[in-house]
Amino acid sequence: MSRTETVLRHLDEQEAQLRQRYFELLRIPSVSAQPAHAADCRRTAEFLAAELSAIGFEARVRDTAGHPVVVAHHPGPADGAAPHLLYYGHYDVQPAEPFELWTSPPFEPTVMPGPHGDRVVARGAVDDKGQVMTWLAALRAWHEVGGGIPVKVTALIEGEEEVGSPSLDAFLKENAGELKVADVVVVSDTNQWDFDTPAISTRLRGMAYVQIDLRAASRDLHSGMYGGSARNPINLLTRILGELQDEDGRVQIPGFYDGVEPVSNAQAAQWAELGFDEARFLGDVGLSVPAGERGLGALERLWARPTCDLNGIWGGYTGDGSKTVIAAEAHAKLSCRLVGSQDPAKVVAGIKEFVQSRLPKDCTAEVQVFGLAAPVVVPVENRFVAAAKEILTEEFGKAPAMIGCGGSIPVVESFRRILGLDSLLMGFGLDDDQVHSPNEKFEWRCLTRGARAQARLLGKLAG
Amino acid sequence: MSRTETVLRHLDEQEAQLRQRYFELLRIPSVSAQPAHAADCRRTAEFLAAELSAIGFEARVRDTAGHPVVVAHHPGPADGAAPHLLYYGHYDVQPAEPFELWTSPPFEPTVMPGPHGDRVVARGAVDDKGQVMTWLAALRAWHEVGGGIPVKVTALIEGEEEVGSPSLDAFLKENAGELKVADVVVVSDTNQWDFDTPAISTRLRGMAYVQIDLRAASRDLHSGMYGGSARNPINLLTRILGELQDEDGRVQIPGFYDGVEPVSNAQAAQWAELGFDEARFLGDVGLSVPAGERGLGALERLWARPTCDLNGIWGGYTGDGSKTVIAAEAHAKLSCRLVGSQDPAKVVAGIKEFVQSRLPKDCTAEVQVFGLAAPVVVPVENRFVAAAKEILTEEFGKAPAMIGCGGSIPVVESFRRILGLDSLLMGFGLDDDQVHSPNEKFEWRCLTRGARAQARLLGKLAG
Repeated sequence: MSRTETVLRHLDEQEAQLRQRYFELLRIPSVSAQPAHAADCRRTAEFLAAELSAIGFEARVRDTAGHPVVVAHHPGPADGAAPHLLYYGHYDVQPAEPFELWTSPPFEPTVMPGPHGDRVVARGAVDDKGQVMTWLAALRAWHEVGGGIPVKVTALIEGEEEVGSPSLDAFLKENAGELKVADVVVVSDTNQWDFDTPAISTRLRGMAYVQIDLRAASRDLHSGMYGGSARNPINLLTRILGELQDEDGRVQIPGFYDGVEPVSNAQAAQWAELGFDEARFLGDVGLSVPAGERGLGALERLWARPTCDLNGIWGGYTGDGSKTVIAAEAHAKLSCRLVGSQDPAKVVAGIKEFVQSRLPKDCTAEVQVFGLAAPVVVPVENRFVAAAKEILTEEFGKAPAMIGCGGSIPVVESFRRILGLDSLLMGFGLDDDQVHSPNEKFEWRCLTRGARAQARLLGKLAG
Repeated sequence: MSRTETVLRHLDEQEAQLRQRYFELLRIPSVSAQPAHAADCRRTAEFLAAELSAIGFEARVRDTAGHPVVVAHHPGPADGAAPHLLYYGHYDVQPAEPFELWTSPPFEPTVMPGPHGDRVVARGAVDDKGQVMTWLAALRAWHEVGGGIPVKVTALIEGEEEVGSPSLDAFLKENAGELKVADVVVVSDTNQWDFDTPAISTRLRGMAYVQIDLRAASRDLHSGMYGGSARNPINLLTRILGELQDEDGRVQIPGFYDGVEPVSNAQAAQWAELGFDEARFLGDVGLSVPAGERGLGALERLWARPTCDLNGIWGGYTGDGSKTVIAAEAHAKLSCRLVGSQDPAKVVAGIKEFVQSRLPKDCTAEVQVFGLAAPVVVPVENRFVAAAKEILTEEFGKAPAMIGCGGSIPVVESFRRILGLDSLLMGFGLDDDQVHSPNEKFEWRCLTRGARAQARLLGKLAG
C-alpha cells in the first residue's frame, strides 16, 4: 500500500474524530462583522493554532489592527526537496441573522439527512470552516500515518474575510519575507461544479462594498405638517438607487464598465460545454426570470460581468403598524462585484458621483467604504494546477470543471500583488450550501471527499 | 366680575394643579401602534374617565375591537336651553422611537426653558394629550367656580387615532343615537398660526397608508454566487418606488389626481395674505429646497395638494459592517395625504396597480392597508365658528387665521358622514412642536392660553 493509500484509509477510519473537531470549531460564533463577537474570533484563532501545533506545526495567533491571524509553519520532509504550499483559509463567518429563519441554532452544528447523505447545518459549515477542515484533516492524516507531512507547509488563516480583509494586506506586507518563500497558495473557499464533479476556479470577481447614509431634515418630521414641502430622504434614496440600472440591467454608475472585457469565443465555448442550467439554478431558489444584464449568457453574467446589488436598506419607521413620519435619514448597503481590470477605487468614486449628482443641495450623502477587492484571473498552466487536475480526477472519477466564480476572495489578488504568489482554487462547496443565508450546510461527503482530495494532492506533490 | 372672568382667574390660579394632572396623563405610554402597550392604553382611558367623573360627567370606558373609547356626558345647565358640544380628542400617542434621539425620557414629562417660557417635553405633550387638557381644564374650571358647566357636553376620547382609528366608525354607528344629539364637534388637534396668532382650520387632508411587502427568492442568497442571475428585491423596490414621482414631483400612481381641484383665486388670495415664509419653515428643520410639486405655492402644496411619502423602508442586512447578501424580501411603508374629493380606496387600488405592473413575474408584492381617511373641508358659516373667532380674538388680541391643515383627522369626516355633525377645529399647537418626532413638546403658555380660550368659548356659547 502506498503512503497516500494508507493516509486515505486512515481518513476514512477517523471520520468520527474529524466530525468532533469540526463541530467544536463550528460552535464558536466567530462573526467578524459584529464587535460583540471579537472575543469569539480570537478563541477560534486559538483553537486552530492548537490544532496545527498538535500535528507538528509551529503555530501562533498573531495580532492585527482587527481580528488576529493564525500563522503556522511545518518544515516538511527532512530532505528539504519538496515544494512549499501556503494554505489559506478564514475562520470568521457571516452574521447569522435573521435567526428566526434557521431550523436549528446557527452555532450548534446539527446533522440532517439529505439526498447525498448526512449534511451539517451551521453558520460556517462550509464557508470557510468546513473547507479549512478538508486540508487540516489531510495534514493531520499525513502526520499521523503517512510518515510525516510530505511537503513544506505554511498555514495562514485570517479572521476578517467576511468583512473585506481590512487588516490582511498590511499583515502580508509586514511578513512578506516569512511568507513569500512558498511556491503557491492553496485556497479552499470555492465550489465543486456539482455533487459528482469537482472544479478548479480560474477567475474570481472583485468587490466594492459601500454604505450610503443620506441625510435631509435635522429631525424626523410629521408627514401631515411637512408633506409637500420637506424633502423625504427615503423617497430620495429610492429615486437615486432606482436609477442604478437601466431597463436592460446595465449599471449606470459613471465609468462603471471601464476595464470590463467581453468574454473570448474560446472561453464562451468552454463554458457552454459545462451545460449550466440557469432555469434549474434559479428554480431551486424559487425564481424563474433571470436578472442582470439582458442578452448575455448565464455564466457570463455570473462569472464575467459586474453587478450592483443593494445588500440592505433602512430608514424611517419599520415597526408594527403605521407612523406618519418623514424621516431625517435613510441608509443603504451596496456592493458591486467586479471583473476584468475594473478598479474598485474608481467604482467607489463613480458611486459617490452617481449619488452626489442626484442630491438636492440641502441633503448630504456620506459614502462609507467597507471593502475593496480587485478581480482575479488565475494562471492555470503550472505544475500545481496540473497536479490538482490529476488528483481530483482520481478522487472523483471525473475531470474537474474549469470554472469561474461569482464571489470574491480578495486575498488571492493580495497574494499575487504582495507576495508574488499564484493561487490554486480547489474547493468542495455546492451551489445549494446556502452560504451567507440561514441554514448554511456542508455535505458530509463533500467534506470527507475534500479531505481525501487534499491528502492526494499532498502525496502527488511530494513526488 | 362675569362668570367667564371668574373662571379665567381660577384657571390662572390653578396652573400647578393642571400641570400635575397633565404630567400624570403624559406618564402613561399609550402607544396604540404597539401591542405591548395595550394595557397602557386602557389605563389612560380609565384615567380620563375618572377625570371627567370628578367634574360631574357620567363617564365610561367603552370597549371596541381595538383600544377602548372614553365617552362622558354632562347635562349642562338646569334650564336645558344651551347648545350641545361634542368634544373629541385622542389619548393614544405615536411610538417614541428612536429613543436615543430624545434628550429626556419620552414618558417622563420634562420642563425645559424656551423662547416662550417653559415648555413640556414628552411624547403626547401636544398630540393630543396636551390639547385634550385645554378643554378638560376649561370644563373643570367652569365646574369648580363658574356655577356649573354652562352648555350640554359629550366628551369622546378615542385611543386609535395614531393608527388610523380602525374601530371608531363602527363605534359611531353603533352609538349614533347617543352621539348625534350634539350640535357640533369641537376638535383640538390642530395648530395655531404662530405663537401669537390663533387659528381655525378649515380643511384637513385625508390619508391612505399602506405597507408594501415585496418577495423574490425563497431565501437570502450569496451575492457572489447569485449576483447577475437572481433578482434583488431591494434593487427592485427602489426601482419601483423611485418612480413614484416624476422630475416635477408629480405622483405617478394611476388615477392619483382624480378629484384634486385647483385652489380658487379667492382662497389663494386669502392664503397669500397670511405671509407664510417657507424658507423659514424649512430652515427651522435644516432644509432649504422646497420639495413637492414644482410651480405651486407653499401653502397650496401643504394644504391643498396630495402627497406620497415613504414613511419607512427596510430589507436585507442592516447591522454593523457588511454582509454580501441578496435578500429574499424588501418592505416599505407608504402614505398619501389626500385632498378635494380623492377617494382613499381608489388611491390604494392605484398603488397596487403601480407596484404590480412593475413586477417581474417571479416576484410578488402584498399591499397591506393600515388606514384610509377621506379629505375634509369644514363649513365656516355657522354660530360655532363665529363664536370661536370672537373668543380667540379676545384671548389673543388678534383675529384667528383661517388656515388649512396638512395633517389628517379622519374622524372629522366620520362625524359628518355618520352623525351628520360639522366640526370646529380650534387647536393650540405650534409648527415646531416636533409632533411624531423625538422631543415632542408643548409650550406651557399654549396649553394655558388654550384652556382660557376653551373656557371663553363655553361662556360665549352659554349665551
